[in-house]
Amino acid sequence: MADNGKNGNQFSVIGKRIAMIDSAGKTTGAGKYTDDLAVPGMLIGKILHATLPHARIAKIDTRKAMLLEGVVCVVVGTDAPNKYGILPVGHDETALAVDKVRYVGDNVACVVAVDEQTAENAMELIEVEYEPLPAYFDPEEAMKATSDLIHDHKANNIEKDYHHVFGDPDAGFAEADEIIEGRYIANEVTHAAMEPHSTLAQFDIDSQTGQPTKLTVWSSTQVPYYLQHKLSIVLDMPMAQIRVIKPLVGGGFGGKSEVIPLEIIAAVAARKAKAPVKITYTREEVFWAHRGRPRTIVDLKTGVKRDGRITAVAAKVIQDGGAYCSYGVVTILYSGALLGALYDIPHIKYDGYRVLTNKPACGAMRGHGTVNVRFAFESQLDELAAKIGMDTASIRQKNLLQAPTITVNGLRVQSYGLPECIEKTVARSAWHARKGKLGRGRGLGIACSHYVSGAANSIIRSDMPHSTVNLKLDRDGGVVIYTGASEIGQGSDTMIAQVVAETLGCTLARVKVIAADTDLTPIDIGSYSSRVTFMNGNAGIRAAQDVKGKMVSAAAKRMQCAPEDVIMRDDFVFKRGVVPEGEEHRAHELLRVRETRKIEDGQVLRDQVQMKRRSDETPEYMSFEEAVAVALSEHRALTGTGSYSPPQEARGGKHKGGGVGPSPAYSYSAQVAEVTVDEDTGVVTVQKVWAAHDCGRALNPVSVEGQVIGSVWMGLGQALQEEMVWKDGLLMNPGLLEYRSASVVESPEIECIIVESVDPEGPFGAKEASEGSLAAAIPAVANAIYDAVGIRLREAPFTPERVLAALRAKKGVAKKIDMTEGVDPTAPERFREHGGSLWFKGKGPKRHAQDPSVVKNPAVAGD
Amino acid sequence: MADNGKNGNQFSVIGKRIAMIDSAGKTTGAGKYTDDLAVPGMLIGKILHATLPHARIAKIDTRKAMLLEGVVCVVVGTDAPNKYGILPVGHDETALAVDKVRYVGDNVACVVAVDEQTAENAMELIEVEYEPLPAYFDPEEAMKATSDLIHDHKANNIEKDYHHVFGDPDAGFAEADEIIEGRYIANEVTHAAMEPHSTLAQFDIDSQTGQPTKLTVWSSTQVPYYLQHKLSIVLDMPMAQIRVIKPLVGGGFGGKSEVIPLEIIAAVAARKAKAPVKITYTREEVFWAHRGRPRTIVDLKTGVKRDGRITAVAAKVIQDGGAYCSYGVVTILYSGALLGALYDIPHIKYDGYRVLTNKPACGAMRGHGTVNVRFAFESQLDELAAKIGMDTASIRQKNLLQAPTITVNGLRVQSYGLPECIEKTVARSAWHARKGKLGRGRGLGIACSHYVSGAANSIIRSDMPHSTVNLKLDRDGGVVIYTGASEIGQGSDTMIAQVVAETLGCTLARVKVIAADTDLTPIDIGSYSSRVTFMNGNAGIRAAQDVKGKMVSAAAKRMQCAPEDVIMRDDFVFKRGVVPEGEEHRAHELLRVRETRKIEDGQVLRDQVQMKRRSDETPEYMSFEEAVAVALSEHRALTGTGSYSPPQEARGGKHKGGGVGPSPAYSYSAQVAEVTVDEDTGVVTVQKVWAAHDCGRALNPVSVEGQVIGSVWMGLGQALQEEMVWKDGLLMNPGLLEYRSASVVESPEIECIIVESVDPEGPFGAKEASEGSLAAAIPAVANAIYDAVGIRLREAPFTPERVLAALRAKKGVAKKIDMTEGVDPTAPERFREHGGSLWFKGKGPKRHAQDPSVVKNPAVAGD
Repeated sequence: MADNGKNGNQFSVIGKRIAMIDSAGKTTGAGKYTDDLAVPGMLIGKILHATLPHARIAKIDTRKAMLLEGVVCVVVGTDAPNKYGILPVGHDETALAVDKVRYVGDNVACVVAVDEQTAENAMELIEVEYEPLPAYFDPEEAMKATSDLIHDHKANNIEKDYHHVFGDPDAGFAEADEIIEGRYIANEVTHAAMEPHSTLAQFDIDSQTGQPTKLTVWSSTQVPYYLQHKLSIVLDMPMAQIRVIKPLVGGGFGGKSEVIPLEIIAAVAARKAKAPVKITYTREEVFWAHRGRPRTIVDLKTGVKRDGRITAVAAKVIQDGGAYCSYGVVTILYSGALLGALYDIPHIKYDGYRVLTNKPACGAMRGHGTVNVRFAFESQLDELAAKIGMDTASIRQKNLLQAPTITVNGLRVQSYGLPECIEKTVARSAWHARKGKLGRGRGLGIACSHYVSGAANSIIRSDMPHSTVNLKLDRDGGVVIYTGASEIGQGSDTMIAQVVAETLGCTLARVKVIAADTDLTPIDIGSYSSRVTFMNGNAGIRAAQDVKGKMVSAAAKRMQCAPEDVIMRDDFVFKRGVVPEGEEHRAHELLRVRETRKIEDGQVLRDQVQMKRRSDETPEYMSFEEAVAVALSEHRALTGTGSYSPPQEARGGKHKGGGVGPSPAYSYSAQVAEVTVDEDTGVVTVQKVWAAHDCGRALNPVSVEGQVIGSVWMGLGQALQEEMVWKDGLLMNPGLLEYRSASVVESPEIECIIVESVDPEGPFGAKEASEGSLAAAIPAVANAIYDAVGIRLREAPFTPERVLAALRAKKGVAKKIDMTEGVDPTAPERFREHGGSLWFKGKGPKRHAQDPSVVKNPAVAGD
Repeated sequence: MADNGKNGNQFSVIGKRIAMIDSAGKTTGAGKYTDDLAVPGMLIGKILHATLPHARIAKIDTRKAMLLEGVVCVVVGTDAPNKYGILPVGHDETALAVDKVRYVGDNVACVVAVDEQTAENAMELIEVEYEPLPAYFDPEEAMKATSDLIHDHKANNIEKDYHHVFGDPDAGFAEADEIIEGRYIANEVTHAAMEPHSTLAQFDIDSQTGQPTKLTVWSSTQVPYYLQHKLSIVLDMPMAQIRVIKPLVGGGFGGKSEVIPLEIIAAVAARKAKAPVKITYTREEVFWAHRGRPRTIVDLKTGVKRDGRITAVAAKVIQDGGAYCSYGVVTILYSGALLGALYDIPHIKYDGYRVLTNKPACGAMRGHGTVNVRFAFESQLDELAAKIGMDTASIRQKNLLQAPTITVNGLRVQSYGLPECIEKTVARSAWHARKGKLGRGRGLGIACSHYVSGAANSIIRSDMPHSTVNLKLDRDGGVVIYTGASEIGQGSDTMIAQVVAETLGCTLARVKVIAADTDLTPIDIGSYSSRVTFMNGNAGIRAAQDVKGKMVSAAAKRMQCAPEDVIMRDDFVFKRGVVPEGEEHRAHELLRVRETRKIEDGQVLRDQVQMKRRSDETPEYMSFEEAVAVALSEHRALTGTGSYSPPQEARGGKHKGGGVGPSPAYSYSAQVAEVTVDEDTGVVTVQKVWAAHDCGRALNPVSVEGQVIGSVWMGLGQALQEEMVWKDGLLMNPGLLEYRSASVVESPEIECIIVESVDPEGPFGAKEASEGSLAAAIPAVANAIYDAVGIRLREAPFTPERVLAALRAKKGVAKKIDMTEGVDPTAPERFREHGGSLWFKGKGPKRHAQDPSVVKNPAVAGD
């Protein structure tokens, strides 16, 4: 670790603070997001959403809508009834509802018209006759159901349950000196990415038959290749006839990591309209599309010895998954599998239930599957430390893994920076000097977390590469990278440019990245589970090594030396010894002097392909361009390919890691939060967070810092104010003002401490950086609140109401909390009147001006 | 030859009549040409042209123009003074005139403004002070000059002269029984492609420094890689920082086969404006940009034996090249080198002069270098036949090469369909029954021609590939071809899709072509000299073979057979013997039956990757998709690369073929034209042309027919009406109405006869198809006129004036022809008044309405 620090000359591109290579388009406004796109003849699609949470569709009458001038067609469920969903399970969705609707906001019909206003007007003319069914909003109630199931084949509305036992939990608990059991609840949150979902679909129309043929889809997605696959299923077309292009994406956080209804609906609509169709969600629709983190009920039991060693853990987890499977089977699996890879826990029992309810489907969200269980675990560990009178940092240090190791549930851990993470946050926060000594109302809390660097087992096929990268070098000296990886703001384009430049020994300026276009680029299964740097990066290194081998062999012949004596660095290709040993990082500076002299000697050759020297001279060094020309003369073409799949050893046992739990490497985080609690208002203010993250190697420190800070910030949102508020299946706060992610003035200082454990499997040692820190933030705040005012909050977010209730309970004064208190009771009726919108759709931004009482935000309501 | 006919089952894709794969965009209007493009913040550039043919620039005052609202900047020569031109010679152009202007229409300044009207208004405010210099308009006069040279270092205004002697011409003439000497003149013609030139240039602007960095250029070009190179020179930028993208191109014919001033000016303007700039030529500017076929004076001498055998040929060729080199050194070389490869000529003397004059530069045009000399040669051969009393078809048959052979000037001829071409045109036109027997005023004429299939020697570097093709196959079964080749309407995208599909044994539907984008695609040096099918096609086959090898090896393992027993055809991969021998072309039909049965047995699997069978079964055949999946499992990634350069044996001797004359293969054409001549009006009407063309193998017969018919049609234009009319260096007919290419109602039936000689080096035997037929059309018409009315026309085009003059001369009544007769004498003055336009620029289409006398078309003027 800190390899880069110890030997700052090891790399030229890696480890440097580099601006994102796509920043120009984003900062000047020239960059195009999907909704910025237009093609000739493009129409607009608007989706009519269900106004009931659970109902059979008796009839959809679109005749009046069709008569409206400017309406081209109306698409309904029977236009594309093939079911799709997340691979390889959960094929439970259709483009539009076929037989019944399962949540308020479910997709009923799509109007295609010449403009948005016409489409909105037409929506109000569609007549839908529903036969209401009993609806389920609470997962524990839904599990009891025997009739009116949400999906007929899902008994008791259970999407999936897992029952895993590792080691001997009974024996473990018997050994324990202290045991605590408790229920922890984390309420539902969503991604709230800045860019709303948007999709533009266009078919080629056969000029002879007039029929749609090839399909091109531009979509704001994290998973272009999954989208291509799902479109193939729904449209009954070969994948090779479908091209998916990902324009700039303004954030995903998991909300675009699966195929979202509008993506399928736009394509079905374009087929029916025989014209390009674009659909962009309103912000309200983004909330209904959801796929965020489920409300999770964790019944947790942990036993420890008096010295702090954990002896056993048992968890029962119930997730309120909403009306469709989505990533649910993965979420509930991760919740169990990743219980075991942070600390050395000898015995684990896990019972997980993913439950269907009549609400929008939950899916993957930053820290997928781990966040809510980690909140429970790290909270309970604090309670145990208090019980045995141990420092809460020390109890974590007591339970460290001894890496390299295989965990009790079969996960391979090769690099493990958690000890250093704890050490550094403790030191930077002056933990031992300040913990418990800050006075009433101010406290410190610590928590840890971790995350996968992608899933080791592909959820598609075990024998396919997770990432392939192709390279092309032309005589112009340009390096072109073709990667399927999806830049969604996380920096993957910059990452792949860096690892290729470093491997090839060239400057970043000559590297171009062509990304995320299923026609142009080889497969990468998507930007999710923090897999891109690890897998795409490794594929990129291999592709670069492929090309480098060809360049080195040609250069060796030209310079008359052994291939192993050819060094490529900083745009120079030189014989070992031309610059003094250890000075290779200064090759650019040292050779440039001689280069200048040579250019002065010769004529000016502007094509920059060849250095100035007689062609019969045996060079000792060459420019990168010259080395390319030399290699092209020998090999005719300079292309390279590299693929990566995690090795078998990292894939875990089928019944241990459970299919998707294992990863080729795990990141580790430790955080200390400092909070103040106002005991009169119940308002919790985070003063500062020290966040240490073991990312293996920071390929681009500025990018790692951005990801860690962003993750902590998002965790603080879930800790303090973000919560989806429901009333009979109707979301009461589907707007950014009401959902209340923290603004910049509400956000505390977050000090990021990068820890580099240099993973042996990672690209240049790198592993996950962009999700793992999130999970620690919530329990760190909970633990800090306990330190500040002595109350243990077991339900997130820790709103003023919950804090005040806990303070009162401590004093023996109980009061039930109703999060919908203050909400306009007519909201559901108005929603139905307006054909599926709280916000008077299409009538401009009148939300608060017209009716400020629609949502009275519970977090700011007095008691 | 006719291999495809003898064995119609040999190929599945090759030889079929296939619609162009890019036809949908072109026929629906969805396709984008350069001028259809727009980017945010785009400005418009308009170029101010010189109004004098030769003058020193004393001063350019742009101050008034700069004050006009909406003007962003004015670019002048000193903004980018680096010289460029055609590789590797002729670096004689600058973006805009630096010291002096050399022709009326030369580029003086460029206004960049928010719209076209503002730019045009601003142009009239630019004050240019000229010091006029003596100007040269006639090449024979220009060659006498000793002062006021057009380019200082070009003595006698001679750009380049060649003096080649092959064999012993003096001895050859001594042997001859009959010798004819004569002067033949072909006047200047231009391409008149439908799409005017257009270029859009955009720099990335560094968000920190505000400076332009990477450059992207969209341009209507035949040569994106040359453009990238020239931009690098002028802008002093590395090529790797420049991306050139070729959108749809609406015809080139050589007029876009070199870098045209607006392409450079747009980039310089975008750099100065720090904003995207688009420039689209008006039709008038297209005529000034020109680069067409030079006026050519051929003094030709041919000797024959009494039996018709040619004993020697001597040619002196003078070309009026205009003010810059352009492709001039190549044109004048081709004119000599290709004299020797059509017939078996034992002795050749060639003296060629490329001369500079103060007119727009000539360049490459369909049939580059061969057309005008062929007109002279085939005319004189007819005269000789008459002299010795021999049939004009027979004299051609008497002088055939005996292929395979090396010609007297070192050109390697491996396939030679000329005998069959002559035979078939003679048969189809009932030549022997009808020649000389059609009555007064109607006649038949025959002529032959030939052309290269690309230049064997690269004009850039001898060691580089002329074409590289990369392939990518993904799990979706799609085949993606990356090619630098430029589709300009000739069908190169369809060609490369065909050869790859045939080689891989897959259907065309799964093949996608990514073309002509210097970032995305590997090098192809351009669409010129009829090189693309031959060179890019060969590279494509090699790339496909590369991938096929990987698929075959994996399929052989899976099917447990030897790799040589794996057959790939029609989207099936099968073991030899699964279908009866000789029935492989029906594999699709035969295996589909069994396939259906298997699908009925199994569950529905929608991802279409794998055929329905148990995974442990050893298959006898697989779908293409399954074979891809099997190969991916073994090889991780399926990519392939292929490159092509002509072999050394095809490159000719340096002093024989002379560098660019040789080609890896030559096409051959024979044509019979039937004409009627109205002796009262002088109007010649072509009734029909029988055109046989040896294209080696017709990869797509419909495409070959289109090219042959188009070539003949263009030749007929040069034969009968197309001519650029000059007055003191001012072009008098710079408009499509005045230039008078034939409309469809003026065009005769052209019967195309495809001859397939199956060239051993060509891709599937193919060679040139799109230029060679042009040259025969002109002499075929001249010879037919002679047959009809007994006059020998030695100056093209054969306008009514020239026909009438010849008819009068035959009767002893001479009259000098003035082609500018009837032209408004005030035109030059008006041109200057309007800042360089005859057409009242920007004031709408008032050309004829306002002033019908501007150009009185000589071809329709009575005598």
